[in-house]
Amino acid sequence: MNFHILTLFPEMVMNGLNTSIIGRAVSRDLLSIDAVNIRDYAFNKHQSVDDYPYGGGAGMLMQAEPVYLAYKAVEEKVAKRKLRVVYLSPQGDTFTQKMAEEMAQEKELVLLCGHYEGIDERVLEEIVTDYVSIGDYVLTGGELPAMVMVDTISRLVPGVLHNDVSAEFESFQDNLLEYPQYSRPEEWRGKKVPEVLLSGHHAKIEKWRREQSILRTKERRPDLLEKCELTEEEREFTQKA
Amino acid sequence: MNFHILTLFPEMVMNGLNTSIIGRAVSRDLLSIDAVNIRDYAFNKHQSVDDYPYGGGAGMLMQAEPVYLAYKAVEEKVAKRKLRVVYLSPQGDTFTQKMAEEMAQEKELVLLCGHYEGIDERVLEEIVTDYVSIGDYVLTGGELPAMVMVDTISRLVPGVLHNDVSAEFESFQDNLLEYPQYSRPEEWRGKKVPEVLLSGHHAKIEKWRREQSILRTKERRPDLLEKCELTEEEREFTQKA
Repeated sequence: MNFHILTLFPEMVMNGLNTSIIGRAVSRDLLSIDAVNIRDYAFNKHQSVDDYPYGGGAGMLMQAEPVYLAYKAVEEKVAKRKLRVVYLSPQGDTFTQKMAEEMAQEKELVLLCGHYEGIDERVLEEIVTDYVSIGDYVLTGGELPAMVMVDTISRLVPGVLHNDVSAEFESFQDNLLEYPQYSRPEEWRGKKVPEVLLSGHHAKIEKWRREQSILRTKERRPDLLEKCELTEEEREFTQKA
Repeated sequence: MNFHILTLFPEMVMNGLNTSIIGRAVSRDLLSIDAVNIRDYAFNKHQSVDDYPYGGGAGMLMQAEPVYLAYKAVEEKVAKRKLRVVYLSPQGDTFTQKMAEEMAQEKELVLLCGHYEGIDERVLEEIVTDYVSIGDYVLTGGELPAMVMVDTISRLVPGVLHNDVSAEFESFQDNLLEYPQYSRPEEWRGKKVPEVLLSGHHAKIEKWRREQSILRTKERRPDLLEKCELTEEEREFTQKA
């Protein structure tokens, strides 16, 4: 899968995605991540890419043409067809794991990062296919949200995760929060590992973990528990707990 | 305000937060951002910080002691009192603008980034005060979520934003999405700036923008519109639209 990130801060994006898992996937050609500097497509000698908004108001707006040319350069290079373009924006649909799974099917994905007060509406109408928000909070620009999307989606591209980490947080994916986990030593500053985890009795361990997940989800995220498929026995356990 | 980020990837965090607004605030001493490498507090000669989970299961777990020592070093250095410690986790409360406003009141904030399968439960019980998730999706680690929190909270620290950008996305903050914006040229690839924005008639521009915000919120995020305070006239407009 190939990510193309249109941004005024290409270095920030590339440095922030330099984790072991993503780096390994890139070197194995499972992923490519390309940050395109919108400023390279400025059409005046000062390389300016922003201007005042019509009608007045605070701050500067990113102009249409450099954004458009940056996108067209990607289109021309990789596909010669209209690509899927996500604009990271508080106005967008909220990003979810399900959306990530769906987007992981794309071969090419363009992520457009706004900065300053935003981007001229006309180029958004022209090129954007999806408006996405990573949550109900206000960020300085679209770069961190783009990085969050690349990280989340990348993990879902087949082959990117090794088997040994593929189960990570999987409980979350079936709508239960993860159970508590413990590593060495058996006793740490007076706190002991729960007995059952040392028992070697796999069925009991599984049952305990599942119950802990249910309890934790009930306590912290009851909204998720409603979406979860529980056995009859687990349902009784949940009610009694 | 001082952020202390406990992480195995300090460079990734620092590089990804190197934006103009944050950088300027740091150089003006309004903020400090310190990434503490948990690996520096490994207690064995191999500097390992992870081990297998008790009870079996995929992947490795971050052990309690290095995390604990990294936190204690921050506590000792800055305050000699228990600090507020946020653990970035899909199990946490969902991060919101309101939570950011509340956290922006803190003088010191510690952000703990998990990696691999997570962190030994016992050290979380010992030091964590807040469990926070930036959204319902699965990331490789807590680093990007920590960066998202630092960016969002920093903007709310008095003096960090210049006046010219302080209104950025403000419409979102009062539960309406932002209106469309336009910059030069007046006509771009056949698309014209809406007439009213060129009129110079400030009251009309204000009204048009407010209506556009309402329309867009109604279309894309009706859940937000319910929380919004509208005048009688605006309420009628919303119903007719």
